[in-house]
Amino acid sequence: MQHYLGYIFDLDGTVYLGEELIDGALETIQYLQSENKKLLFLTNKTIDSRENYVDKLAKLGIRVGLENLLNPALVTIHYLQEHHPGAKVYIIGEEILRQELVSNGIQLANSPEETDVVVVSWDRDFHYEHLDFAYQSIKRGAAVIATHPDRTCPMPGGDIPDVAGMIGAIEGITGQKISIIMGKPSILTATTALNILQLNADQCLMVGDRLETDIRMGRDAGMSTGLVLTGITGQDDVDTTAYKPSYIMHSIYDILKASNTD
Amino acid sequence: MQHYLGYIFDLDGTVYLGEELIDGALETIQYLQSENKKLLFLTNKTIDSRENYVDKLAKLGIRVGLENLLNPALVTIHYLQEHHPGAKVYIIGEEILRQELVSNGIQLANSPEETDVVVVSWDRDFHYEHLDFAYQSIKRGAAVIATHPDRTCPMPGGDIPDVAGMIGAIEGITGQKISIIMGKPSILTATTALNILQLNADQCLMVGDRLETDIRMGRDAGMSTGLVLTGITGQDDVDTTAYKPSYIMHSIYDILKASNTD
Repeated sequence: MQHYLGYIFDLDGTVYLGEELIDGALETIQYLQSENKKLLFLTNKTIDSRENYVDKLAKLGIRVGLENLLNPALVTIHYLQEHHPGAKVYIIGEEILRQELVSNGIQLANSPEETDVVVVSWDRDFHYEHLDFAYQSIKRGAAVIATHPDRTCPMPGGDIPDVAGMIGAIEGITGQKISIIMGKPSILTATTALNILQLNADQCLMVGDRLETDIRMGRDAGMSTGLVLTGITGQDDVDTTAYKPSYIMHSIYDILKASNTD
Repeated sequence: MQHYLGYIFDLDGTVYLGEELIDGALETIQYLQSENKKLLFLTNKTIDSRENYVDKLAKLGIRVGLENLLNPALVTIHYLQEHHPGAKVYIIGEEILRQELVSNGIQLANSPEETDVVVVSWDRDFHYEHLDFAYQSIKRGAAVIATHPDRTCPMPGGDIPDVAGMIGAIEGITGQKISIIMGKPSILTATTALNILQLNADQCLMVGDRLETDIRMGRDAGMSTGLVLTGITGQDDVDTTAYKPSYIMHSIYDILKASNTD
C-alpha cells in the first residue's frame, strides 16, 4: 500500500460500529498521528454536531480536534459562503444544524419573500408548514440545496426516514429535482475535505465501508480509495460494483499492518 | 354536437369559478336534468366532503344529490373494496377523508405491523411521524396508493402544496414510485364514474377546463371530451397539446345552445 499525506475516514462501519471501536482502529489512527499525517473524519449525519463526534471519538480513546471532523453542515456552510455570500437562508432541519449554520455567520430568513436559499436537511419534526414555507420561497425564486441524500438512517430500533423524505416532498411539489446535494457521495464534500486538508486528491486515501458513497466519492474526486469489510459491504459486492476501490482491506488496521511490512 | 346519455363535469373552472357560477351553467344543467340525462360532477379535492359540494352547488341554484358527486375519497373506497377487501388501512390525510372512508366500512390500522394498505392523501398537518409510520408499514409489505396526484392547490391567497408533497416524501424514502393513484386523470376515476352512471364510455361526454386531467382522462377512457375555455386553458394551448378534445366550447353553456340549434 502506498503512503499518503492525508487519510479521510468514514466513521460508522469503518472506525467504529455503533458504540464499539473496530479492532486496531485506535492503534492505526495513533500511528498515523505519530507520522504527522493529516486526518479527516466524515459523517453524513446532521442530527449530531461535530463537537458530539469529537467527544464520541475521545471516549473511544481517539483524540482529534474539531478541525478533523467534516459533516454536511460544514460542507453547506462552505458552499453558502462561496456561492451565496450574505444570503438569507430558510432551513428545514433540526436545531443542532440551525445552530451550526448560524454560529458560522449564516443569516436566517423570516419569510418566503426574503429567502434566498432553502437548505433542506433531515428534520424529525418536519411538518407541512415547512413544506409550504419552502415552496412559497422557491416559487419566488429562492435556490434550493440539500445537506445530504440519505434515504434512511440506521437506529437501534431499526432504520427511520432520513432527509430523502424532505427532499422528495419538495421535489413532488415543484416538479424539479434538487441538483445540489452536499454530503457523501457529493463531490462538494470531497472538495471541501481537500480544501480543509490543503492537499491534492492524489495525496489522499479515502477509506470507508460503502461503495456507493465513500468509494464513489473518493473515485470521483481522484483520490485513492480503500474499502473496509467491517461495515455494510462484503467481498462479493465488490465484484459487481461500478465503484471499484484501489484497495480492499479487512479493516482499517490493514493500513498499520501494511506500513510495518514496508 | 352529439347527444349523450351521461355528462361528467369538472367543477372549478367549468361549472363555477371560485364562488361564482359560469354564465349559462345553471340553465345548461337544468336543461340536461329535464332531459333525464345522467350527471356526475368530479373534483380532485380531498379536504372537502361530497356533502360540502352538494351544499355549494345548491347555494348556486344547482340541485343535485350525493350520488351525483365523485371525489378521490369515493374512488379510493371503490378501489379498496375491490382490490383489498377487509384490509386495515393507514391514512395520511385530513379528518374529512378519514371519516368518509370509515363511514364506508374501511378499517383503520393501529400499527405498521397490522397495516395492509397505506393511503396517501393531502394533509395540511402532515408530519414526520406520518412519514415514519407509512415507511415502517411499507417496509413490512403494506401496499401503497394515493388519492390524487395534484402538485398544488389554488387558494384565495395563492397556491399551496397538495398531495404531491406527501407522495414525494414517501417515494423519496422508499425509492419506489407510487403507481396506483386515484383522482383525475387516473383511469380509476373514469371507470368508477362509468360504474356509478351505469353507462359505457362512448355514451358519455367528459367536460372540463384542463387538458392534462379532464380531457386526458376522458380520452384515455374512450369518452367524448369537451374542453371549456372558462378555466385555466386557452385556445392556444389546444394547438400544442397531446390531449385534443372532441369539442372546444366557450363555456358549458354551448351544450344547451347546441341542443337548441339541432
